[in-house]
Amino acid sequence: MGRDLSALFDPVSVAVVGASDDPAKYGHAVAAQALRANGRRPVHLVNRRGGTVFGRTAAPSLSAIGEPVDLAVVCVPAAGFEDAVDEALTCGARALVAITAGFAETGDTGRARQHAVAERVRAAGAVMVGPNCLGLADNTTDLFLASDTFTPGGIALLSQSGNLALELQLRFRPHGLGFSRFVSLGNQADVTLVDLLADCARHEGTRAIAIYAEDFADGRAFAETAAETSADTGKPVVLLTAGRGDAAARSAQSHTGALTTPADVVSAVCRDTGVELVTTPRELTVVLAALNGARRAAGRRVAVLTDGGGHGGIAADAIEAAALTVPELRLPTREHLQKVLWEQSAVANPVDLAGMGEQNPGSYADAVAALLAAEEVDAVLMTGYFGGYAHTEAGLGGGGTVLADGEQAAARLIADHHRATAKPLVAQSMYPESPSCRTLAEAGIPVFGATEDAARALAAATPGAPRPGVTPLPVPATPLRESGYLHTRRVLEAAGLPFPAAREIHDETELPAVTREFRGPYVLKALHLLHKSDAGGVALGLAGPVALRAAFRDMHARLGASSYSVEAMADLTDGIELIVGVHRDPRFGPVAMVGLGGVLAEALHDVAFTLAPVTAEHALRLLRGLRTAALLGGVRGRPPVDLTAAAAAVETITAFAAAHPEIAELEVNPLLVRRHGVLALDSRAVLA
Amino acid sequence: MGRDLSALFDPVSVAVVGASDDPAKYGHAVAAQALRANGRRPVHLVNRRGGTVFGRTAAPSLSAIGEPVDLAVVCVPAAGFEDAVDEALTCGARALVAITAGFAETGDTGRARQHAVAERVRAAGAVMVGPNCLGLADNTTDLFLASDTFTPGGIALLSQSGNLALELQLRFRPHGLGFSRFVSLGNQADVTLVDLLADCARHEGTRAIAIYAEDFADGRAFAETAAETSADTGKPVVLLTAGRGDAAARSAQSHTGALTTPADVVSAVCRDTGVELVTTPRELTVVLAALNGARRAAGRRVAVLTDGGGHGGIAADAIEAAALTVPELRLPTREHLQKVLWEQSAVANPVDLAGMGEQNPGSYADAVAALLAAEEVDAVLMTGYFGGYAHTEAGLGGGGTVLADGEQAAARLIADHHRATAKPLVAQSMYPESPSCRTLAEAGIPVFGATEDAARALAAATPGAPRPGVTPLPVPATPLRESGYLHTRRVLEAAGLPFPAAREIHDETELPAVTREFRGPYVLKALHLLHKSDAGGVALGLAGPVALRAAFRDMHARLGASSYSVEAMADLTDGIELIVGVHRDPRFGPVAMVGLGGVLAEALHDVAFTLAPVTAEHALRLLRGLRTAALLGGVRGRPPVDLTAAAAAVETITAFAAAHPEIAELEVNPLLVRRHGVLALDSRAVLA
Repeated sequence: MGRDLSALFDPVSVAVVGASDDPAKYGHAVAAQALRANGRRPVHLVNRRGGTVFGRTAAPSLSAIGEPVDLAVVCVPAAGFEDAVDEALTCGARALVAITAGFAETGDTGRARQHAVAERVRAAGAVMVGPNCLGLADNTTDLFLASDTFTPGGIALLSQSGNLALELQLRFRPHGLGFSRFVSLGNQADVTLVDLLADCARHEGTRAIAIYAEDFADGRAFAETAAETSADTGKPVVLLTAGRGDAAARSAQSHTGALTTPADVVSAVCRDTGVELVTTPRELTVVLAALNGARRAAGRRVAVLTDGGGHGGIAADAIEAAALTVPELRLPTREHLQKVLWEQSAVANPVDLAGMGEQNPGSYADAVAALLAAEEVDAVLMTGYFGGYAHTEAGLGGGGTVLADGEQAAARLIADHHRATAKPLVAQSMYPESPSCRTLAEAGIPVFGATEDAARALAAATPGAPRPGVTPLPVPATPLRESGYLHTRRVLEAAGLPFPAAREIHDETELPAVTREFRGPYVLKALHLLHKSDAGGVALGLAGPVALRAAFRDMHARLGASSYSVEAMADLTDGIELIVGVHRDPRFGPVAMVGLGGVLAEALHDVAFTLAPVTAEHALRLLRGLRTAALLGGVRGRPPVDLTAAAAAVETITAFAAAHPEIAELEVNPLLVRRHGVLALDSRAVLA
Repeated sequence: MGRDLSALFDPVSVAVVGASDDPAKYGHAVAAQALRANGRRPVHLVNRRGGTVFGRTAAPSLSAIGEPVDLAVVCVPAAGFEDAVDEALTCGARALVAITAGFAETGDTGRARQHAVAERVRAAGAVMVGPNCLGLADNTTDLFLASDTFTPGGIALLSQSGNLALELQLRFRPHGLGFSRFVSLGNQADVTLVDLLADCARHEGTRAIAIYAEDFADGRAFAETAAETSADTGKPVVLLTAGRGDAAARSAQSHTGALTTPADVVSAVCRDTGVELVTTPRELTVVLAALNGARRAAGRRVAVLTDGGGHGGIAADAIEAAALTVPELRLPTREHLQKVLWEQSAVANPVDLAGMGEQNPGSYADAVAALLAAEEVDAVLMTGYFGGYAHTEAGLGGGGTVLADGEQAAARLIADHHRATAKPLVAQSMYPESPSCRTLAEAGIPVFGATEDAARALAAATPGAPRPGVTPLPVPATPLRESGYLHTRRVLEAAGLPFPAAREIHDETELPAVTREFRGPYVLKALHLLHKSDAGGVALGLAGPVALRAAFRDMHARLGASSYSVEAMADLTDGIELIVGVHRDPRFGPVAMVGLGGVLAEALHDVAFTLAPVTAEHALRLLRGLRTAALLGGVRGRPPVDLTAAAAAVETITAFAAAHPEIAELEVNPLLVRRHGVLALDSRAVLA
């Protein structure tokens, strides 16, 4: 259910502690905003010097107000922070917005201070946003506790950066997007991104949730909450995050104390939970403009409509670059278009009016109607000059007001056709601010100036593969006490993962017993070496006892290991080597990796990530999604390998690792997948 | 040297044939434009009905003008096109701009008609742009022969689409970019993209050439001319093209009759000739804004400067996504920054003023100076709020005019620091139109609203790998008369490519002679089958004469081929299989492909393209650029393979194919590259 944040977003009364008449102080801007909604609830200003602020009597302290305060905004200097919080709790505050900075972002001492404060807040049954935050606003409850005004709308913005929030506000405007809530995350000492996400998922006034975060706090809880949000409410969650590269990670650590999580894990979590991951404020805006309405495409097939020139081809390329398709239209659709359009119009897809739009803008509407009605079309993109017929001066061949009127009429007809279907229609126009494009936008048809934005919007409105969500962590098993190769092998074998026969030996005299027990060819491995094969500690393809003995003597002379493993060598012919690993991410817990293994692993770097444990069903999807998946299906006369067994092995390995929190890293490589079944040829574990 | 197009761009006199007072006719718009420069040269209007047009006496025909016409614009209906052209040539026209449509774009008859006209134009020593074009303009000679006005500037735009030209004009404006020339390419019956590119390369008023083309005409000549342009003049050539996907190709064919060339070839040509390839009008504008100045980065190391929040991290990610780097700054630079900035400012890179910019905009200038001076920095990106300090209402914490003044002063200081170095500096701002950002832009610092645009601009200003240009085609050799496997092998062997021993046999009785000649293991191949291995026509690893005989009997019973090749089987251990192919592109001539071969070829699809012939030096670069290049260097204990020999083999194969225009396709696959030397294990040729 998540924490009760009602006092944070709809408090009975508000006090701004540190309110000031000095415009250079943040307490000035927040107080000015807070007072805007004075009629809705009592707003108290507190300044330790008393006197007046904004012409009103300021209380010298919270206690001096003489009545309970439900929410306190704390913007005092860091030295007075603890006292201010304690006084607020004493005065009955159920919610705190801590603007004051100088805590976790400055180092360990600050981290300890904010931790102690958060403990006291929680002990008092209250909640606290921040410290080191810029405040919050809720347009649905007239609560304005940040320095800026946010245009009302359906987007809840949870942001770790104030300037980005301002940029988003600027970018949202032309798309008619506004904010239900804005929360500056700050250091998340008490209320976290996860708490806020859960609350916004429940919030009636919020249609979509936009997040800028460098620090996910409890990443696994974030993933679970995001998955629930999209599954239970259908509300889009769009995540803008930095830290995919080294430099961004450096930046995040230097100014927020955030622990940046590798990009691969974040991408995988977004894919699995239905979160739209974006990389820039512009892309975030485009995706929200597309997802703000409820329309989603049933498939990836897009029809492109243009009037002459290169816009059609460029849009088709952009659509294909966004992993959608631009299929040729079927005969009935083409015949219908041929009837309503000119002879020279192209009707294959892209549909090109070939100048007819300029003569008769209504032809756009006819074509849109035909395309939206075509069963082979999941979504439509209008691109190019529409919106420009009013711009006589700039228009090729002129036209004037007659055309402008015709274009407006066409826009209204297009809006009608759009209303009559559930398919997404998106427009790119050279004149996105033109009256006819405004008509489209007001009808809920997203309009963009750039072709790539229109294509990105369509991709966002096209749900991808099924989302497995997050598989719950299993009950922890009895912890492993040692991580040696043979021990790890044994426990994995006990968990159901097949390995070839193996025996541990310590000296040459033990060899005959082993070679009597199972036949060659053999593999000899020196134990207790981390990268055995790099160190020359693995000998493969030893045909029989003689070769095995020679290899043992050589290896022992070189490495002098305390023990060795003699194993039956698997037949590698017609098999594919995979790698399956699990590592423990400090934010997201056990994270699984599956990919092409063996000698190709490093050269090809073809791997997929997901949160562990992984079900066999999801593992199958990941394996089929590998870049080199064709290898698994059998190439050039090779038989296909046993994907079902591979997927089951992934489930076994990842469930095992997830049940052992003491394992920092577990890797099975290679996992030989054969025509029938699998065989784990090597494994490695590192305890935390 | 290219064709003399002086009559096209600076004619002594102009006549518009088909000039009209009817605003719906193109001859109206063109005449109106042509008359704008009436003072520069005589402009005659021709309308077959005579009378007046634009209040001037119109000549009923070109001959009726009574004096020679240097350039004739022809916008008469298609039926009268030939007559109009012939009359213009008779009247001494040295240049024609053929607006009239209805030729190659409508089919073969139209193509034949325009071909015949072009022949007559050339025979008369004249030049013709079009037909089916929208005219041209040259701002440097006051020649306006298109329906639109183009803002003067340094960009020559050669475009196959009129609407795209209009979109570009709109997009150029905020960046202060304008046009030296605009040419609508039309059907390129006589003057081609290549002629125009060569002329614009020579044109003094042109600083950069922007192209939108679906049809490259003679693609190889285009590549050669583009390479010369960038090598000899340093003028940037930026190419926007559609047709990377199936749909775009369909679109191009349907409305211009263009023969679209696969995207891989176009990308390779651009990479090799220094042409900047872009995919949308927006990207084209960004790249031109970056390349309009002469600054280029000496390396890929970018410093990012921001003032708080997430902009730094997001910009760093965008820069890394654009294949540039954001390295940590060296100690002296960090120490210097620490001295001039706040204690809480981050100085690692991204450099984050951490609020200091808001207090003192001059700190931006100090930081920019330090970064531009740092030897470990090749270029600088300023990102975020700069430009916004004048926007008090929107500003976090307010500020007012004092800050606005400080920001303007900082902008001027930044412009000074910029002038003092040769390194590129690019800005992203939430307020790109603000006065201080205008100050930056006027100083030649490109300013963008979107982070990804700023990163793309820096990438464009960072020259990549050395450009090999285009190796000239060799003198054609004596044509092959047959394409059989053994014949192709023989001629390639004669050209210097090593193959294993092989003998052709027709029946079983010939086997003993072969096995006496060379030893096993053997390979047996059925000949005259196109996909031998798919059809079961290849048997590998036949240990000796007995296995060879058994394989022969089996294969002969199944396939009954008329002949077979018995070959010595190469030792594949420690070798890497490559594929080297050449196919003849209708536009670009012989195109080479090198990549990972053998069974992995199709699964990995890791190939590189370039124009054939390929020098060994360039081949080496291509091989090292493969995604799986690590395989060639030896992975996990395997020795590295002989890249020098592989590159020499690529040179041999591609030179051979280039010298044989009768070969439509030639493929050597696998080309086994070993520790020392290479061995071609199979080859295939298709004659045109």
